[in-house]
Amino acid sequence: MIVEEIDLRSDTVTLPKPQMMEAIANATLGDDIMGEDITVNELERKAADLLGMEDAMLVLSGTMANQIAIMGFSTRGQEIILGSESHIYNLEGAAISALSQVQARPIHVENGYFDPELVESSIFRGDIQRAKTALISLENTYNLNLGQIVTLENMKEIQEVAKQYGLPVYLDGARIFNASVELGVQPSVLCKYVDAAQFCLTKGLGCPLGSILVGTKEFIEKAKINRQRLGGGMRQAGIIAAPGIYALENMIDRLKEDNDKAKQLAEKLSSIEGLFINLNDVQTNIISVTILQSEMDADKLINDLKEKRIKVKKIGSKKIRIIVHYLISDDQIDYVVSTFRELLEGKR
Amino acid sequence: MIVEEIDLRSDTVTLPKPQMMEAIANATLGDDIMGEDITVNELERKAADLLGMEDAMLVLSGTMANQIAIMGFSTRGQEIILGSESHIYNLEGAAISALSQVQARPIHVENGYFDPELVESSIFRGDIQRAKTALISLENTYNLNLGQIVTLENMKEIQEVAKQYGLPVYLDGARIFNASVELGVQPSVLCKYVDAAQFCLTKGLGCPLGSILVGTKEFIEKAKINRQRLGGGMRQAGIIAAPGIYALENMIDRLKEDNDKAKQLAEKLSSIEGLFINLNDVQTNIISVTILQSEMDADKLINDLKEKRIKVKKIGSKKIRIIVHYLISDDQIDYVVSTFRELLEGKR
Amino acid sequence: MIVEEIDLRSDTVTLPKPQMMEAIANATLGDDIMGEDITVNELERKAADLLGMEDAMLVLSGTMANQIAIMGFSTRGQEIILGSESHIYNLEGAAISALSQVQARPIHVENGYFDPELVESSIFRGDIQRAKTALISLENTYNLNLGQIVTLENMKEIQEVAKQYGLPVYLDGARIFNASVELGVQPSVLCKYVDAAQFCLTKGLGCPLGSILVGTKEFIEKAKINRQRLGGGMRQAGIIAAPGIYALENMIDRLKEDNDKAKQLAEKLSSIEGLFINLNDVQTNIISVTILQSEMDADKLINDLKEKRIKVKKIGSKKIRIIVHYLISDDQIDYVVSTFRELLEGKR
Amino acid sequence: MIVEEIDLRSDTVTLPKPQMMEAIANATLGDDIMGEDITVNELERKAADLLGMEDAMLVLSGTMANQIAIMGFSTRGQEIILGSESHIYNLEGAAISALSQVQARPIHVENGYFDPELVESSIFRGDIQRAKTALISLENTYNLNLGQIVTLENMKEIQEVAKQYGLPVYLDGARIFNASVELGVQPSVLCKYVDAAQFCLTKGLGCPLGSILVGTKEFIEKAKINRQRLGGGMRQAGIIAAPGIYALENMIDRLKEDNDKAKQLAEKLSSIEGLFINLNDVQTNIISVTILQSEMDADKLINDLKEKRIKVKKIGSKKIRIIVHYLISDDQIDYVVSTFRELLEGKR
Repeated sequence: MIVEEIDLRSDTVTLPKPQMMEAIANATLGDDIMGEDITVNELERKAADLLGMEDAMLVLSGTMANQIAIMGFSTRGQEIILGSESHIYNLEGAAISALSQVQARPIHVENGYFDPELVESSIFRGDIQRAKTALISLENTYNLNLGQIVTLENMKEIQEVAKQYGLPVYLDGARIFNASVELGVQPSVLCKYVDAAQFCLTKGLGCPLGSILVGTKEFIEKAKINRQRLGGGMRQAGIIAAPGIYALENMIDRLKEDNDKAKQLAEKLSSIEGLFINLNDVQTNIISVTILQSEMDADKLINDLKEKRIKVKKIGSKKIRIIVHYLISDDQIDYVVSTFRELLEGKR
Repeated sequence: MIVEEIDLRSDTVTLPKPQMMEAIANATLGDDIMGEDITVNELERKAADLLGMEDAMLVLSGTMANQIAIMGFSTRGQEIILGSESHIYNLEGAAISALSQVQARPIHVENGYFDPELVESSIFRGDIQRAKTALISLENTYNLNLGQIVTLENMKEIQEVAKQYGLPVYLDGARIFNASVELGVQPSVLCKYVDAAQFCLTKGLGCPLGSILVGTKEFIEKAKINRQRLGGGMRQAGIIAAPGIYALENMIDRLKEDNDKAKQLAEKLSSIEGLFINLNDVQTNIISVTILQSEMDADKLINDLKEKRIKVKKIGSKKIRIIVHYLISDDQIDYVVSTFRELLEGKR
Repeated sequence: MIVEEIDLRSDTVTLPKPQMMEAIANATLGDDIMGEDITVNELERKAADLLGMEDAMLVLSGTMANQIAIMGFSTRGQEIILGSESHIYNLEGAAISALSQVQARPIHVENGYFDPELVESSIFRGDIQRAKTALISLENTYNLNLGQIVTLENMKEIQEVAKQYGLPVYLDGARIFNASVELGVQPSVLCKYVDAAQFCLTKGLGCPLGSILVGTKEFIEKAKINRQRLGGGMRQAGIIAAPGIYALENMIDRLKEDNDKAKQLAEKLSSIEGLFINLNDVQTNIISVTILQSEMDADKLINDLKEKRIKVKKIGSKKIRIIVHYLISDDQIDYVVSTFRELLEGKR
Repeated sequence: MIVEEIDLRSDTVTLPKPQMMEAIANATLGDDIMGEDITVNELERKAADLLGMEDAMLVLSGTMANQIAIMGFSTRGQEIILGSESHIYNLEGAAISALSQVQARPIHVENGYFDPELVESSIFRGDIQRAKTALISLENTYNLNLGQIVTLENMKEIQEVAKQYGLPVYLDGARIFNASVELGVQPSVLCKYVDAAQFCLTKGLGCPLGSILVGTKEFIEKAKINRQRLGGGMRQAGIIAAPGIYALENMIDRLKEDNDKAKQLAEKLSSIEGLFINLNDVQTNIISVTILQSEMDADKLINDLKEKRIKVKKIGSKKIRIIVHYLISDDQIDYVVSTFRELLEGKR
């Protein structure tokens, strides 16, 4: 039996479904910089409605959405409060400083909880020496190696602090739907507590490309100028938008399956000797695994798994990450567990 | 008879050919940030070869390619020499200053000729007050309202000046193939005189999205970091690359037809009373038309044409621009001429 | 007889008068970042009154004043219209792009005249691709190699254009008093046409250090934050301010003498064979001299003059610049003329 | 008896000694941008020698020195590791991001100890998403509200980590001499562990203005360009340098007295009921005082002290800071203690 490759490195490796490819083939296209790609327009309208925001804009990636948001909410020489493990701070090439000239004020976020007191004590109104805080940037799910859920209550608390200081709140919701299906609420409920947000069409939704930035009409208007400046303006972007429309209609609710599978997988893996997983941390589709065995490390384990046609991601010398997505079947979960067991327990 | 809309505003409005859509449908996809989209890899290889450069990188747009190039060739507080009518200077949201902190040193370019003496006198080696020149940026075809050809001799002259000062030369070749087919040379011949270049897959080549940046391996490696920082990193970008491969194989040589049609159209339009076209300026697929009639202006003409299902672009109160592309047939050219004649000469 | 050195390279070489040194010795000092240096406060009050502006701020240099002004009037990704020979564009290390991320839109300024039509055609309201104009930046006297006067009428014209587009006007008045004494008006009359301005205490006024930025209270408040960010905040700055107070009271009116001497010197030098001076250009204290002799060039002439204890500045391979200031006596003017004559006419 | 004002808010309030003012009066001046102010040159030579570095440059302020150093060691889009309570991170208007486009990676520094493991884990070599670390920035004394000493051993440890990764180390030594006198070593010993450093002539040394940046010749050459760009180039800067020379010769050793007085004062104040001082924290001339009384807070205490002619600085709602400097006599220390006692213990 030939085992198909099981790619658990990320949910960005997901390939578009046949229906998405069909949507591309049938899409009506136009020049989107001129606002004439009706497929893009339809996706943006749907996305704005889904998130309960006034307007939306398709962009190439989550990083671009995040950076455009920061440009929109800040001027040079200000500060942004964000989680110390957030994507914006760690995995966007220092772009907030490089492109927007704003300084990061990272705070520790414990188990997906943004402590309102800590946030408040990190806000500065600005004086002759202190940079003014421009924005509070949340991330939900939080930490791309953990995928923790920021609760509605927590988001509300942060919004209240922000209001007190007249600050906007932004949500990097790259995997927001993994949170909303788990919380059992409409995505728009999460967006009630923020001024703008983005989510990715790639990752769990399975589209080849694209993210959506949502906010007020005024915010999106300004965002279009900054998108263009970054080289993010698009011509016949309907080929990106068409699978996006399919995804919004068909791929959100099923994310619960990914979350559930991830939890099952985590539970089973955690029973293997030589592996440690904090099961409380596994709240959505992401699992961080620590290797306890002295003879095993991440490089070796990744290599051994590869020979068994399983791919995972190294995130430390003794740490790997697993992300579950729609291409992973129950059978594959079983195969993954038995392979891990064989590689680790067979070794003792 | 229902006349189909004739869109002459730009060659960016071109829609993908059915063969391109088929190429998308059949493309093998992968995660391009991980370097695993083989369709992208194939396009990049083909493009590097075509331009005679070591390496290539797919990006979303010409603006993004240009800005990444400038990031790669400069550090903050330096200067870039470029044409005063160049796209980089005028139509990229001041991005060279906003994103790369470099200052523009625009020079006048007469009829597509970059005067080597003027270029040389604009170069500074840098001192305590003078910013150092980092780059000479050419554009070929030059001026998006004229599409003028920069000759091989001129490019060579500029390269020689640059070498004397140890400066790199960059080529914004958004419409480079409109120049190469007209000059009757391989595109790689034009690239012999520069260190890096970009061309657009949209515009005359008719792809929905994408541009290609070419240069040395080292340059492209650095470019990938800057692309990511701009949010230009892509996942399953094969859907952009697939039509690009088709275009490189099938759409370049035929650009000569667009150039020829544009010249014919220009000649015919210039015979209409009340219109002025400098025929020497019409070297590729772009025509700038000045309205001489006192009762007519750009807004009115554009409106009148629209009623006749013809779209052109306003570039001044008495100026319009026409760009010819592969969707424009000979019959349509005739219809456009007769409609202009009717609107302008019928009016007197 | 030992001839004292005659330094005509710039008016920045002027040494403080004994009265200025005395003013320093007697100054009451305090911590200016805390607003407690009363000597600074007094200078700022006097300067604001003299220029007819609401408020003033002492800074270390003209460059710092200019850059703080640009920071105050712009946000990243905008454009500044300025003269192509202006100090801000050419001699401040590309700081407007490096520090403020704004793009220069240089225009040709003929003989100190900012053509209102040219200015207007360089203004952009901003769209998705075009950067928005943020500021019109004048310079009076204009061009540090010529010192040309921008007339009141011209300043008014520019202000009117600016108002039409809701744009602020800034005046780099490094040598503003050389203009005002020549125009026979109070400095405040020139400032009526601008929103903010700066002048230098060094240069003709003879202070060791310092420039003054003037504008509205709100503008200066913001400027203090940007000054601090640049490292321009000062502690006991009274030692800079004290000679400044003396200068404002005693050194302005006498600049007419420098202008007059420069004109006399220019007239006499222009009668020497082998030298060319456009006498129309000599409007204040600066003279640009072109060497016509084939055997002589700037390097040689500067060297020859040095041996005669005269220093001038090279500004081209056949061009030197002379700036007259308060340390230059009538006798020295005569000596300079006779030395030039000897060096050039003796050579033929 | 009239009590003279006792200003303990900072050592920046120190006024120049009569000998300093005399030094100004006798200084030989010149144009420093042209390198011709021999008083500046002398100070820079002395400072380089004192710190054991190749070259030195006078700048207006510590903030300017810090920012120029960061410009010199980084390019846009990189990261700087620094203490989370450092001046550069908190009190320079986010300048590292605003002026140099680099991102802060703040780390916790416990009691002046930069944990080498924590530093190492904060270093990134850079990849497509991770910004590359450019610099490790130390501060000694650390934390302007505590003035803690970073030991030689610790500096060496950090240097070793840095070397491993090919990274430079910078020292913000605004109050470096308060550390060196306490450690009983020459200042140059501290600089052995870093690539560049700055110290302030204001603060404990009592000069009106100025800081000195030291490093290699090449570093200082580049620094001069960046100083000029910031508007920090100076003309007759000898008036700043002259007291600096006096300070280097006469004011360093006596800083031990300030440190000793601060410790005595801290000990005495800590015996007052209602005040808390961590005596281990008082290592140099700075004291952080926490108010424990429920009826007293910083605002009230500051006000009460002001009426008694004593000034201290608020650093929290229940926290004040005291800095001892050369203008504070033993008698004044006694008066301060008795006044605190009266205000706090009298209140119970």
